[in-house]
Amino acid sequence: MSLDTGAEALARLAEERVDHRFKGLPPDAEGLTVGELAAQRRNLFSGGFATPVLALSAERLEHNLALMETYTERHGLAFAPHGKTSMAPQLFRRQTDRGAWGIALAVPHQVRVARAFGTRQVFLANELVDAAALRWTAAELERDPDFRFICYVDSVRGVELMDAALRPTGASRPVDVVVELAAGEGARTGVRTEAECAAVADAVAGAETLRLVGVAGYEGEVPQADPDRVHAYLRRLVALAVEFDKAGRFAGLAEIVVSAGGSAWFDAVADVFAGIPELSVPVLKLLRSGAYVSHDDGRYREVTPFNRVPEEGALEPAFRLWAQIVSRPSPEQAFANAGKRDAAYDLDLPFAQVIRRAGTERPATGVSVTGLSDQHTWLRTDPGADLEVGDWIGLGLSHPCTSFDKWQLIPVAEADGTVVDYVRTFF
Amino acid sequence: MSLDTGAEALARLAEERVDHRFKGLPPDAEGLTVGELAAQRRNLFSGGFATPVLALSAERLEHNLALMETYTERHGLAFAPHGKTSMAPQLFRRQTDRGAWGIALAVPHQVRVARAFGTRQVFLANELVDAAALRWTAAELERDPDFRFICYVDSVRGVELMDAALRPTGASRPVDVVVELAAGEGARTGVRTEAECAAVADAVAGAETLRLVGVAGYEGEVPQADPDRVHAYLRRLVALAVEFDKAGRFAGLAEIVVSAGGSAWFDAVADVFAGIPELSVPVLKLLRSGAYVSHDDGRYREVTPFNRVPEEGALEPAFRLWAQIVSRPSPEQAFANAGKRDAAYDLDLPFAQVIRRAGTERPATGVSVTGLSDQHTWLRTDPGADLEVGDWIGLGLSHPCTSFDKWQLIPVAEADGTVVDYVRTFF
Repeated sequence: MSLDTGAEALARLAEERVDHRFKGLPPDAEGLTVGELAAQRRNLFSGGFATPVLALSAERLEHNLALMETYTERHGLAFAPHGKTSMAPQLFRRQTDRGAWGIALAVPHQVRVARAFGTRQVFLANELVDAAALRWTAAELERDPDFRFICYVDSVRGVELMDAALRPTGASRPVDVVVELAAGEGARTGVRTEAECAAVADAVAGAETLRLVGVAGYEGEVPQADPDRVHAYLRRLVALAVEFDKAGRFAGLAEIVVSAGGSAWFDAVADVFAGIPELSVPVLKLLRSGAYVSHDDGRYREVTPFNRVPEEGALEPAFRLWAQIVSRPSPEQAFANAGKRDAAYDLDLPFAQVIRRAGTERPATGVSVTGLSDQHTWLRTDPGADLEVGDWIGLGLSHPCTSFDKWQLIPVAEADGTVVDYVRTFF
Repeated sequence: MSLDTGAEALARLAEERVDHRFKGLPPDAEGLTVGELAAQRRNLFSGGFATPVLALSAERLEHNLALMETYTERHGLAFAPHGKTSMAPQLFRRQTDRGAWGIALAVPHQVRVARAFGTRQVFLANELVDAAALRWTAAELERDPDFRFICYVDSVRGVELMDAALRPTGASRPVDVVVELAAGEGARTGVRTEAECAAVADAVAGAETLRLVGVAGYEGEVPQADPDRVHAYLRRLVALAVEFDKAGRFAGLAEIVVSAGGSAWFDAVADVFAGIPELSVPVLKLLRSGAYVSHDDGRYREVTPFNRVPEEGALEPAFRLWAQIVSRPSPEQAFANAGKRDAAYDLDLPFAQVIRRAGTERPATGVSVTGLSDQHTWLRTDPGADLEVGDWIGLGLSHPCTSFDKWQLIPVAEADGTVVDYVRTFF
């Protein structure tokens, strides 16, 4: 797929009709195209939007995109922001326009989405042994010489399955793979020992359909993670690359890929990758952080590396979920009309942040979220908390990945509420 | 919207293109219409579907639909199956074709979806004070004389907000409302006391834009629910209807609505509603159970009323999520490629049920799910458990509502794996 085809596909998103598929959008916008609705620059609070509605902050999104561009540049890292977070091709494009190497993804379906919108370089941070998906990948590599695709391997059997699925395709280009080194005993996927890594690399070398291009891992799964343990794991990963290189496993490559980096330890990745020694060919030091794009008001606010390196900047939470108080059955309780269908709830419950009534916004003092039903927010109110049926409540969220995935078309609003864009997601 | 328009909209679902929007579907089906793909009757296991893929059992779906049709008929209940569970207009249609009165829903966006596909009678089991949604509702009632719409009220302020939003529309038809009686102190929405119910009903009587048509509640939120407490609450609900009727609050109606019933206590609803005395006009005894359509292998298997009345039948779990083992890093661990994006996880983790390898299916003996990442299933394997990279694992799920909402197009497969239909959801 050429860049132009991707740009066309992105442009076509603005031609989609606003209808029953997209919750939260103004019912009276039915039949307009997304582009026409955006051009109306409606206000999120007075423009006919229905609750619940999730909104992204235009300014904060831009700030976060710029901050990680600067951060990765400063640290000499290539960047494949993890696209599984947003699954929003418009954001993928903004990320690559800002110099990202490409997009990291987690499963083949996500690769199809990225490819449909012109992403040229994909790092699939997962094992891939699905025959149907491998056939599709081989065909896509064949069709587009500019498509670069890399995925994990962590077992000899996995290599054999890949080869068995790819051989019948007769594809001329091998599939590039990196050996995944596990983050420790009991951690997630990945080869547990360096000896096994060598065995997997041997298997790759024996498969004509595959090409070993580097090593990768995910420090976010280091057991009992702390800076020392995370650094130690990342040094093991680098040492594996060095050892593989010395063994001639990367002979003939133009570059060697070394990849790590979620959203909690990219400072450690920057540190350790800065110390990668000179190898036989240049090293692509590929960071894969994804949650930064929206950041959050919960887990990622707590674990962001910028807490350790505040001099390098700070991410800003870009999501706010707006719900309406529909019931106030007692002085201690209130209920809003957003639930598990609308808000992330896997890491923390939403946070009551602000109340809007008659155009005025104030802190949600004395109001807290105690639970979510499928379609209700349970709120506890302290004595004297001023909360009425009809009020809008602005909720902060924890976990970008499970916030994006509940909304297919997300208004992007400026600070004064003007909605300037709509972000389409594909989950 | 006429019935025909709804049928046309349903037919158009078969004309949608299979593409990157729909995960799990065969990559080589790209560009086919959904109807063309269905006509190919591909096999779920050998027809090129990519993992993870959620499938519905054709036979079990049919069984569950038939069972609740029979059950409600036998007990003299009208049925508004809760559509929030599936948000699948094709299933709504199968439900109303089987005699359901209409569809229950939870938020206005869901009403728009149902209306786009021709649902004529909607019971919104929630308060509705959103001005934009009320304007849309009023316009829809005006546009289609066959559209019947009922929603909750539980506060005088809510009634005032509804009236304020509806008055400027100049609509000729009032919005029908029922007073929601809360299931107890500390329960969810709903008026806490009978005295307050009367005050809310007085407010409705004073609002020209609203019409009081009955009472409703949700016994699923009875605190420390047991059969006695649930029966007691439902008797309070019936007594409220009787009291309102005696007070002349339903004068001029053709029928009085009394509604309750989730998926855990519909036997109690059948019992208590069978004892509703004769009122001034006939009573529409409206049951709202929704989870029955797919049932599940977890919470709903535990709480289904059929466990108490086995002589009336048994629901069958209709979902199975198929994922692929992508990593087997140690004798104790394995990882599949389905995660929080694919499986419900709010009530229970998925259940490892069966393993498929080379066309053979066997029980997943010694394999259990210990966690979900965004895109991974964590599996623990007992010594000797036969599980390899490449195997497919069939997972049972807990909670229909949070299973449906992770899939936009769900293959419906017969017992031998033949996919005969695709169910589209709108969340």
